[in-house]
Amino acid sequence: MREYSIAVIEGDGIGPEIVREAVSVLEAAGKKYGFHLNLTPVLLGGASIDRYGVPLTQETIEIAKKSDAVLMGSIGGDAKTSPWYRLEPSRRPEAGLLGIRKALGLFANLRPAWLYDELKGACPLKEEAADRGFDLLIMRELTGGLYFGKRETVEKDGVLVATDTLTYSEPEIRRIAVKAFEVAGKRRKKVTLVDKANVLDSSRLWRKVTAEVAEKYPDVSLENMLVDNCAMQLVRDPSQFDVVLTENMFGDILSDEASMITGSIGMLPSASLNETSFGLYEPSHGSAPDIAGKDIANPLATILSAAMMLRYSLSEDEAADAVENAVRKVLKDGYRTGDIYTEGTRKVGTARMGSLVAERV
Amino acid sequence: MREYSIAVIEGDGIGPEIVREAVSVLEAAGKKYGFHLNLTPVLLGGASIDRYGVPLTQETIEIAKKSDAVLMGSIGGDAKTSPWYRLEPSRRPEAGLLGIRKALGLFANLRPAWLYDELKGACPLKEEAADRGFDLLIMRELTGGLYFGKRETVEKDGVLVATDTLTYSEPEIRRIAVKAFEVAGKRRKKVTLVDKANVLDSSRLWRKVTAEVAEKYPDVSLENMLVDNCAMQLVRDPSQFDVVLTENMFGDILSDEASMITGSIGMLPSASLNETSFGLYEPSHGSAPDIAGKDIANPLATILSAAMMLRYSLSEDEAADAVENAVRKVLKDGYRTGDIYTEGTRKVGTARMGSLVAERV
Ligand SMILES: CC(C)[C@H](C(=O)O)[C@@H](O)C(=O)O
Ligand SMILES: CC(C)[C@H](C(=O)O)[C@@H](O)C(=O)O
Repeated sequence: MREYSIAVIEGDGIGPEIVREAVSVLEAAGKKYGFHLNLTPVLLGGASIDRYGVPLTQETIEIAKKSDAVLMGSIGGDAKTSPWYRLEPSRRPEAGLLGIRKALGLFANLRPAWLYDELKGACPLKEEAADRGFDLLIMRELTGGLYFGKRETVEKDGVLVATDTLTYSEPEIRRIAVKAFEVAGKRRKKVTLVDKANVLDSSRLWRKVTAEVAEKYPDVSLENMLVDNCAMQLVRDPSQFDVVLTENMFGDILSDEASMITGSIGMLPSASLNETSFGLYEPSHGSAPDIAGKDIANPLATILSAAMMLRYSLSEDEAADAVENAVRKVLKDGYRTGDIYTEGTRKVGTARMGSLVAERV
Repeated sequence: MREYSIAVIEGDGIGPEIVREAVSVLEAAGKKYGFHLNLTPVLLGGASIDRYGVPLTQETIEIAKKSDAVLMGSIGGDAKTSPWYRLEPSRRPEAGLLGIRKALGLFANLRPAWLYDELKGACPLKEEAADRGFDLLIMRELTGGLYFGKRETVEKDGVLVATDTLTYSEPEIRRIAVKAFEVAGKRRKKVTLVDKANVLDSSRLWRKVTAEVAEKYPDVSLENMLVDNCAMQLVRDPSQFDVVLTENMFGDILSDEASMITGSIGMLPSASLNETSFGLYEPSHGSAPDIAGKDIANPLATILSAAMMLRYSLSEDEAADAVENAVRKVLKDGYRTGDIYTEGTRKVGTARMGSLVAERV
C-alpha cells in the first residue's frame, strides 16, 4: 500500500464542508487504486487567527513541509462583517495565504479555466463563443512581484506617500518559464507570455528570459501579449489561449477574469507548486461566508483540486483521471449544486454531491 | 465668434484619416454653434520619430500648452513589423504618449464604455446582459504608479534583477478622487474604487484618501472593490458600475477589458484631463496599421472624443450634444463601417462616415 502524508487546511467559510467532500473522494480513490492517505489537519487564515491570534504559525509550516502535499479549502471571510478585517493587514487571513506561499516556495500557480459541455449555458459569453469552447491554463508566478516587494508608507512634507516595489530576477522568471513550457508541451504546445513590456523593466526581463527558455522547447510556440490586450482577448476569444504565463499581479487579475468567463467558478481547481513535486491545492473560488454551513456550496472545485494533487504531487495519474471522470459523469447524470443548477437538472447539496462523485470513482 | 486653439496630433496608422473626419465634424459644429477652431498640427509618436528621431519634442509640448485642448489620433504601430520597435523602449512611439501625459499633467483619464442599442449584437456577452445594457466610465489615474516610478535593471551576483516602483502620494490620489466624485455626481452617483488593498500599501492609501474625499459628496456612494474581483464583475454584470476609480496600471487593464465587452472599440472615446479645463482627446482603440490608408477605419471614436473635447475643455455643451446625437442618428440610419457592419445595414468607408455625421450635426 502506497502511503502519502497530506496536510489538510479546512479554511474559513465554506472551507470545512467542501474539504470534507474532497477528502471522502480521495479516500474512495485510495481504496480503488491502492494507496492510503495520512491526513494531518492544520490551521491557516481566519481559523488560525481565532485559535492562535495569527493567520499562520510555524507549526503549520513545519507540518506542511513534512507532508507530500497540502489540500486546502478557502481562506478568509467577508471584509464587511468579519472581526478579522479590523486587524492590521499583516494579521488578516490573506496574510496567512501569502505567508504559506512564500514559506513553502510555491512559485508556480496553475489555474485552469475551461468549459464543460454540460455547463455551457452558464458561460456569460455569447453562444458562438461558448460552443467554440476553451481550455486554458494560467501559470501565475506566486512568490515575487508587487506581492512580496519592499513596501512602505512615509510622511514627506506633511503628506503620506506609499510605495510598493515590483522586482523579478532572472532565476525567478526562468524556473516558472520552464514549468510553463513543460506543461504546454503536454497540452496544445503554446505559451503566451503576458506582460507590460512597453512600460516595465521587469516585463522586459520576463521577455528576455522567457525567450531564452523557449529556445530549448522547439515544439512549443511562444507568443508575447500585453496585459491590457490579454484582458480584452480573454473576452473576445478565449479559445486562442493554451498556457498563459505571467507575473503575480497580472496573474491574479487575469486568472479571475478567466474563471468568470467559464461562468462556473465553483468548478475551477488550482495548484501551487514548488521546485519539487510538493504542492498546495485549493479551489479557485473564495470562502463564501454567506452560504457557509448550509450544505449548498459546490465542492467540485475542491474535488478537482484534489485530483490535481493526485496528478502533480503523488503521481497517482490513474486515480486523478478517475476523479476527473467521476466529476464529468456526475454532471452528465444531471446532478448540480445550486450555483450551477438549471431547469431540468437535479439539485443536490454539498455532501450529496461529494458522495455522488465518490461513488463514481 | 468664439475662438479656440487646438493642437492636432494626427498620429500613426489610421490616425490621420480618422482625425481628418473628426476635424470636419468639429468644423460643422463650429459653423452651426458659432465658434471657430484654430488648428495647429503637431507631431507625436511614430510620426515624430520619423521626422525628428524622437517620439516627443519640446515644440509639441509648447504648442500643446498654449492650446485650449489637444485632439489626437492613435499612436504607435505594429511591433512585429515597424522599425520603431527596434529602438530603445524610451525612444518608441509609446514613450511619446507617456511623455506628453506627464509633460501636460494629464492625471485623469476618462474612458467611458457603453452599449448602443443599435450595436447590441456586437456585445460578446450573452443577450440578457446586452439587453440590460451598461454605461460605465473608468476614471484612470494617468501620471503616477508603475508607469512613472523609478525603474532599473541591475546585475547582482551574476544575474539580472529588474525593479519597477509603484508610488502614490495623498495629493495625487485626492485630485483624481475629487474628479471622480464630481463626474459621478452628474451621472448615476456611484463611485467604485478598485484596488488591491489586501496586498498593497499604495492601495491602502487610495482607500484612506478616497474615503476622506467621499465625505464631501454625501449624495454619491462609494464602494470598494478588489481589482481581481472587478475583472470578474465586468464580465458578470457590467451594469453594476457607474464611475470606476483606479490607479494607472489597473486602469489600463480594466479599461481595455471594459471596452471589449462593448464589442465595438471603434466607438469608444477618451479624455485625459489636468487640473484646469485643458485636456487631450483620443480614441480608446489603437493605430491599426494593417488597415491604415484604406478608408475602412471607424472614425466614430475620434469624433466622439472631439465631442468630449467640446464638453470638457471648451464648454460647448450644446455642440457636444449635437455631435453625440449626430453619431446616434447615423447609427439609427443604418450606416456602419466594416468593424461594426452586420447584415441589413449599410457599409460605408471612413470619409463617408465622417460626412454623414457632419451633415447631421
Ligand atoms: C487573497 C489574495 C491575497 C489572493 C491573491 O491576490 O493572491 C487571492 O486573490 C488569490 O488569487 O489567491
Ligand atoms: C501604449 C501604452 C503605453 C498605453 C498605456 O498603457 O497607457 C496604452 O495602452 C493606453 O492605454 O493608452
